[in-house]
Amino acid sequence: MEYKVLTEDDIQFFQNTINPENVLITNLEKYSRDTTEHLEFFPDIVLKPGSAGEISKIVSYCNQKLLPITPRGAGTGLAGGALAVKGGVMISVERLNRIIEIDEKNFLVTVEAGVINYELQKALAEKNLFYPPDPSSWQSSFIGGNVATNAGGSRAVKYGVTRSYVLNLEVVLPNGDLIWTGANTIKFSTGLDMTELFVGSEGILGIITKAVLKVLTKPKKEISLLIPFRNMFEACDAVSAIFHSGIKPSALEFIEKRAINCTIDYLKEVSIPIEDEIEAHLLVSIDENIEEQLSECVEIASKFDIGEILFAETEPEKNRLWQVRRRIAEAARNCGYTIEEDTVVPRANLAKLVESAHKLADSSGFKVVCYGHAGDGNLHIRINHPKYKNSYNQPEIREILTQLFEIVKSLGGTVSGEHGIGLVQKDFLPIVFSEANLNLQKTIKNAIDPKNIMNPGKIIV
Amino acid sequence: MEYKVLTEDDIQFFQNTINPENVLITNLEKYSRDTTEHLEFFPDIVLKPGSAGEISKIVSYCNQKLLPITPRGAGTGLAGGALAVKGGVMISVERLNRIIEIDEKNFLVTVEAGVINYELQKALAEKNLFYPPDPSSWQSSFIGGNVATNAGGSRAVKYGVTRSYVLNLEVVLPNGDLIWTGANTIKFSTGLDMTELFVGSEGILGIITKAVLKVLTKPKKEISLLIPFRNMFEACDAVSAIFHSGIKPSALEFIEKRAINCTIDYLKEVSIPIEDEIEAHLLVSIDENIEEQLSECVEIASKFDIGEILFAETEPEKNRLWQVRRRIAEAARNCGYTIEEDTVVPRANLAKLVESAHKLADSSGFKVVCYGHAGDGNLHIRINHPKYKNSYNQPEIREILTQLFEIVKSLGGTVSGEHGIGLVQKDFLPIVFSEANLNLQKTIKNAIDPKNIMNPGKIIV
Repeated sequence: MEYKVLTEDDIQFFQNTINPENVLITNLEKYSRDTTEHLEFFPDIVLKPGSAGEISKIVSYCNQKLLPITPRGAGTGLAGGALAVKGGVMISVERLNRIIEIDEKNFLVTVEAGVINYELQKALAEKNLFYPPDPSSWQSSFIGGNVATNAGGSRAVKYGVTRSYVLNLEVVLPNGDLIWTGANTIKFSTGLDMTELFVGSEGILGIITKAVLKVLTKPKKEISLLIPFRNMFEACDAVSAIFHSGIKPSALEFIEKRAINCTIDYLKEVSIPIEDEIEAHLLVSIDENIEEQLSECVEIASKFDIGEILFAETEPEKNRLWQVRRRIAEAARNCGYTIEEDTVVPRANLAKLVESAHKLADSSGFKVVCYGHAGDGNLHIRINHPKYKNSYNQPEIREILTQLFEIVKSLGGTVSGEHGIGLVQKDFLPIVFSEANLNLQKTIKNAIDPKNIMNPGKIIV
Repeated sequence: MEYKVLTEDDIQFFQNTINPENVLITNLEKYSRDTTEHLEFFPDIVLKPGSAGEISKIVSYCNQKLLPITPRGAGTGLAGGALAVKGGVMISVERLNRIIEIDEKNFLVTVEAGVINYELQKALAEKNLFYPPDPSSWQSSFIGGNVATNAGGSRAVKYGVTRSYVLNLEVVLPNGDLIWTGANTIKFSTGLDMTELFVGSEGILGIITKAVLKVLTKPKKEISLLIPFRNMFEACDAVSAIFHSGIKPSALEFIEKRAINCTIDYLKEVSIPIEDEIEAHLLVSIDENIEEQLSECVEIASKFDIGEILFAETEPEKNRLWQVRRRIAEAARNCGYTIEEDTVVPRANLAKLVESAHKLADSSGFKVVCYGHAGDGNLHIRINHPKYKNSYNQPEIREILTQLFEIVKSLGGTVSGEHGIGLVQKDFLPIVFSEANLNLQKTIKNAIDPKNIMNPGKIIV
């Protein structure tokens, strides 16, 4: 598709449609990057509409004029999904930041797409309610982006990912139509489920403007424990053992030695004693039947070769442990591990994946660091090579990632568990999907957005 | 679309493709009906292939020859979704009845589409595993049909509907392509989610041939209690109160007086004492923290005007209570309530829905009976009119259903929570979906199945 170049007339139209102060054509640095390393693409213009109706008008205009659109949330994505790879018009939902209704009776909340996850949590906590999805970016990421990537987080192991909480979406389609996708009900068997299609669609089918989310009663208490393992593969096996016992952890994270060391060095203020011979830690949280589940968990762990368990019950104690987990990505990046992968396999195959990732790195001169949501089989693997520029465009990096995803595929897994495909993972999709599956996805995209104006260059197009 | 008429050559092709004994052209009565009342459509031919590969060949052939296809499960549907309304070729998955793998380590099971829900439950129970979805038809319905309608059941209130358990599907597309839709992982953010699109798609996008399902550890114990309320609306209010207390019932069913009386009359062998002034019952199950949750539940119920609670702990005791709930549909049908609806609203709006349904019936000479999955806001409403033939084609019935769904819509609800749309609900979709939403669904259907050969006449086409 040959896109049109932005003209003065187009700018005039946008300035007439939304307040001119929300039409940006200079100082767009902030909008040229997301949280993926080494990537920068400038849109020609950034629009900050204040309502779904304004977005509908803008999209309809861009569709007529063949201007490519990049929907934009908080820019916390790790796959380049919010980058304007074709230039053109960026539509930021940052001004759609209202929590419209907290319906306590029905355990529902209606929010605009630009509401920050943290702000929603805060508002709900005041009413003793709780929205479980907690991606690492939760303090800054938008609900709209969380929905668009089907974001996960540490609590997903017990509570499920973003998808499990989305009941209904307001969406602007590529032709400008504004629709609600479903109904505000927990059960839904009413036609093709358009809500489910839009969750995780990363902006290629339309722009999410509102979401109706299910919320829960806040758990009364939660405790965490950090269990050190002298053998990294035993840590993985302990994950399976915990699940087989019937324990329902509200988080179950795996952190290998290199990740925890790197983070403790980086966070100078946090001190956690780590014995030299420890290869990996499990960070476990429990938020129901605490006494019973805690003692069972300790009993299971004690069957393995472990060090001294750290328990955290108060908020400061828990923060100390969780800060280490939450800031691994930042710390690892600082140590040169700038390429982050988001592999996911069936849970019991985790040890095999960790082992294979290390072998692959060793045999090819890379360094690798593994951590992540072990309870879900969702392992973040960061790689680094002293010789190569750590960019997704580096052929050696593409080669090692190809080999990594082939291993993941052979273990029944896939390329992304919670980050999405965006720009940087799209070339790896043929490893996990057949040509016929990819054709199906392309057929749907093409039918809904025949001119390919909506987030072009992402996932499959 | 002008479909072709089945020829001798076509029959020859099918007999060459699958064993001739699995090609049926006479005695098709069994395949001409499902569990929807008053409807009968004969296919021209019924095929019972033995593998996904055979289905792929048949579908590819039908696509070329413009022969309409009706995918068929166990025929337990309540919306006419498995009826051959255009004649043509019916493809039954009844021979795809193998449980392929129970992966205890990963809590996954892989089944063919024709496996009966009950057979899967039985096989899992032997390994102390558990697949929660339990539609009323569970003793005969197929997993393939459960997935195609996103079937619910009583346990959905705690454990979620079928969708919550489907990780990956093998599907034959309308062009004959055979694909796996996703990966065998709990978390998945890898492209447009084709698994989610096929769940609940009622055969209009393709034929499901295999499913990878998540399973859980079997709860150790479950108890049930039947709570009689002297005021039907108080019963609905008690539902909200139970949830607000933090209790997590594994079932929470509402049964109004007329439904329970009708069922007890019908099931001569079951005797349950019912006081005259009782207007409705709640049937509650609890399967964790039993003592604590049970006493809290009784305390909440006691704040309302209730009769004597019946407790059921042993299997025979529980069966006695649950048989009444499970056989309401059959009993109500026997009492003349042949039209069954599957409305769903946000939970706290249940009392309003029950009240409105009764008012609507009273004012138009209908009789109505309400029961269902109160915890999910999913209310089955059966209607009867002494004067009219109780068929969906009767104008007076269409009129009262239209009014009913307008009420449901005004309460934030929708047409179907767990049965699907199929044939009999399709005309009511414009009440709950905008034209733009319906156009989107049609666009997708048309892109995937441009010749409209796959389950034509259903949902939106």
